[in-house]
Amino acid sequence: MDTWLLSRMQELKDLQGLIGLATWDQEIYLPARAGPARAHQLSTLQGIHHERLVDPRLGDALEKAATEAGLTDDERAMVEVLRREREREVRVPAALVRALAEAQSQGLHAWREARQERKFARFQPALHRLLSLRREQADAYGHDGERYDALLEGYEPGMRVARLTPVLSTLREHLIPMVGTLSGTARKAPDLFDGRRYDKDAQWRFTLRLLKDIGFDLEAGRQDLSIHPFTGGTHALDVRLTTRVDETNPLSAIFSTIHEAGHGLFEQGFAPEHHRTPLAAAPSMGLHESQSRLWENLVGRSRAFWEHYFPLLRDSFPEALAGVDVEDFLAAVNAVRPSLIRTESDEVTYNLHIAVRYELELLLIRDELPLDELPAAWNARMERYLGVTPPDDTQGVLQDIHWAWGELGYFPTYSLGNLYAASLYRAAERALPGLEGQLRQGHLLPLRDWLRENIHHHGFRLPAEERVRAVTGQGLTDADFLGYLRTKYGVASCQGR
Amino acid sequence: MDTWLLSRMQELKDLQGLIGLATWDQEIYLPARAGPARAHQLSTLQGIHHERLVDPRLGDALEKAATEAGLTDDERAMVEVLRREREREVRVPAALVRALAEAQSQGLHAWREARQERKFARFQPALHRLLSLRREQADAYGHDGERYDALLEGYEPGMRVARLTPVLSTLREHLIPMVGTLSGTARKAPDLFDGRRYDKDAQWRFTLRLLKDIGFDLEAGRQDLSIHPFTGGTHALDVRLTTRVDETNPLSAIFSTIHEAGHGLFEQGFAPEHHRTPLAAAPSMGLHESQSRLWENLVGRSRAFWEHYFPLLRDSFPEALAGVDVEDFLAAVNAVRPSLIRTESDEVTYNLHIAVRYELELLLIRDELPLDELPAAWNARMERYLGVTPPDDTQGVLQDIHWAWGELGYFPTYSLGNLYAASLYRAAERALPGLEGQLRQGHLLPLRDWLRENIHHHGFRLPAEERVRAVTGQGLTDADFLGYLRTKYGVASCQGR
Repeated sequence: MDTWLLSRMQELKDLQGLIGLATWDQEIYLPARAGPARAHQLSTLQGIHHERLVDPRLGDALEKAATEAGLTDDERAMVEVLRREREREVRVPAALVRALAEAQSQGLHAWREARQERKFARFQPALHRLLSLRREQADAYGHDGERYDALLEGYEPGMRVARLTPVLSTLREHLIPMVGTLSGTARKAPDLFDGRRYDKDAQWRFTLRLLKDIGFDLEAGRQDLSIHPFTGGTHALDVRLTTRVDETNPLSAIFSTIHEAGHGLFEQGFAPEHHRTPLAAAPSMGLHESQSRLWENLVGRSRAFWEHYFPLLRDSFPEALAGVDVEDFLAAVNAVRPSLIRTESDEVTYNLHIAVRYELELLLIRDELPLDELPAAWNARMERYLGVTPPDDTQGVLQDIHWAWGELGYFPTYSLGNLYAASLYRAAERALPGLEGQLRQGHLLPLRDWLRENIHHHGFRLPAEERVRAVTGQGLTDADFLGYLRTKYGVASCQGR
Repeated sequence: MDTWLLSRMQELKDLQGLIGLATWDQEIYLPARAGPARAHQLSTLQGIHHERLVDPRLGDALEKAATEAGLTDDERAMVEVLRREREREVRVPAALVRALAEAQSQGLHAWREARQERKFARFQPALHRLLSLRREQADAYGHDGERYDALLEGYEPGMRVARLTPVLSTLREHLIPMVGTLSGTARKAPDLFDGRRYDKDAQWRFTLRLLKDIGFDLEAGRQDLSIHPFTGGTHALDVRLTTRVDETNPLSAIFSTIHEAGHGLFEQGFAPEHHRTPLAAAPSMGLHESQSRLWENLVGRSRAFWEHYFPLLRDSFPEALAGVDVEDFLAAVNAVRPSLIRTESDEVTYNLHIAVRYELELLLIRDELPLDELPAAWNARMERYLGVTPPDDTQGVLQDIHWAWGELGYFPTYSLGNLYAASLYRAAERALPGLEGQLRQGHLLPLRDWLRENIHHHGFRLPAEERVRAVTGQGLTDADFLGYLRTKYGVASCQGR
């Protein structure tokens, strides 16, 4: 490949890394009064990234490379990925970019105030403006009549509403009766969080032990504390996880660490020859989330895993866990209970929370739901799918930050992550016959290596669903996920599947 | 001022802030394996900064603004500072910039190996290359026959060898006999570091207490740990100090924190209306160092200061300091003793270490000292000025990192800092008649406010010496510094001054 083009790819990747650093730092270490200064710095950096991405010389070089003979498959993929990213960015007029940035900032502000007042109406005008701009943006990107597709493409390249809706609707129809059956039948375990204290340093050490066992390389990454755990960083050799430590409940730290480690392994697993190129990236948010979910739920909430780790956990908290056995603990980490808040929900109810959001944001982008009916529509769906009714908007339609800054199209990637995770785990079980026994001994590296070889290493070479199909033999499906839940929770198929 | 020009100034400042962030992070939090990735990111960022600084459109805008009527004084100063910076950068050919970067990297590598082998000869070829490129760079910058001036200009704008050499030579001639008189006469204090343990957390808390009292705003900055303490950050509201904690000796943490806080106060003290402009910067490294030295030595090693803080220190380390009184402690922090290592030297001998370096690097840049004679020349001067002889090159000519990456012209700014510090402190005593009494009560804010108003607030508006003259009534002089030492250590003038 042309050395100029390669150096431009590397430069763009370096700039993304630096945006990652400035964002990570902002969430964790930025002094309180430096917010506006950092906003300026980030805006400058993003502006330079934009300017260099839309540079016509880059466009010409990409066009030329796309027709060039003699490129390797990887080089062809690099050119293709960057071309697509560039074409999207070029299509959005600068005035719309600015208007969106402003509306996002106002949206966040209004959302925070609305949450304080517990009144959606306070946020409604800002959301109205954001929706209108996002529709305009979707039209600028271009679509075949379904604007939502154009937004979804930014998070889940290649996925379309026509493909997604049937899968998520069927999933929903299977989950609703399953939740009904399961909730209330939970084993009555002792409440592990009834005022017991779990030493913070011991929690931190336990999470570091988990990172080591999972194979997250702490010489190519780090873990810090933050209020909202996330995965960031600047490069495959500089991947930064955060976790949170709650003295009254160690599950928060444990599952945050495992979840973020799943994301982090993806980032650390990119092929070294792809570093500083467009291929050193996950092909979609859904596939990224599949890795965090696989580790968090399929592994981290399994009996085999805790047969190994529960004795170590009890050693870490001998007082708080005195008299608790592994069955009590498994019951606590696998309790199924319909709840109001998505981020606190279990692996069975979780996708129903996503169904509510996906269906509503699709209506909103299509302009088929008047905004003043949104809270009622939210509450009605929560009642219908989960049997719970939010007592106010803050515990209902205002709970997530996503819409507050106009991020529509992101929510379904969480469900895609859950579905892909189950399919990939099933493929791993077939490929690694001793997997469960390995987990039972705390040997997590064979699974990590299998995921690295089959998923992480490929980076952005194939769209997510094609990569999953290459590994599992099939594309997006809810069968593996539902099968996993039925086996784990001992529920018979409710609709004759 | 033209809004385009202002936005370019802001953008350049934002990029400098981001370079600051990436550098700070690299020293403290970067994972071990991410070094090469960060080097790429920094090089990309520096390349973009360079590209935008030498952009001919910026040159035109600056030329136009320089002749424009109706600019405020501040705007005129912004234009002037950026013009000078740009002109220097424009003059160095890109090939030379690349060659220097490569030679610096090789220099650091060779220097580390040479230190391991304790042999200067291992480093000599790399230094030879660096010197040759730095001479070339000096010629590119332009000078009146004294190449060193062109390099000094990068650290101490406006200063010249012709002005500096007489001052530093006279200083040296006064210090040599003073050191002779003082060393050996030190009060025989109990050794405070004979295996006693000073709790690390208590040291950390003590440094935070000092930062608070000194008026370093921890909501507009932070303190972290690093091996080599430094001051970095991204903006006047995001100033980042580091300190180091040695369990066997709390003076390391205490004086590192006070020193870096002096630098940090300068950065935090820039006028808000100068933020994101070329004026939000110190006009020279010497004036910057004057602030760290003033707090570290003039305040932090004074009797008045410790009359307040020693009781607090004893409360922090009741076991280690049992039976130690303030006199013992003052003797320990003010012991004068010729030594081999600059960074461990006291305030009397320190400038003799600088004299060795300044004189030698001046000879090197002038090409008047064959490189293979450098270690012997170093040792001879150490013997002559300080009466000590390095047992090997690692404790001699190889001790500092500066020459390892070709930084010549920096060392004298340390002595300038000491001289300016004494002059400024004397002016502060005149302006604040109750100063000593305030220190004695731990009231440090009046001094900070005076420095903020007279030094920090002005940023880059005047060259360093002019700023000092505006405050003290005189420019660079060794009289205040020598007077301070004579009074403090009770030495009579040795040469009839």
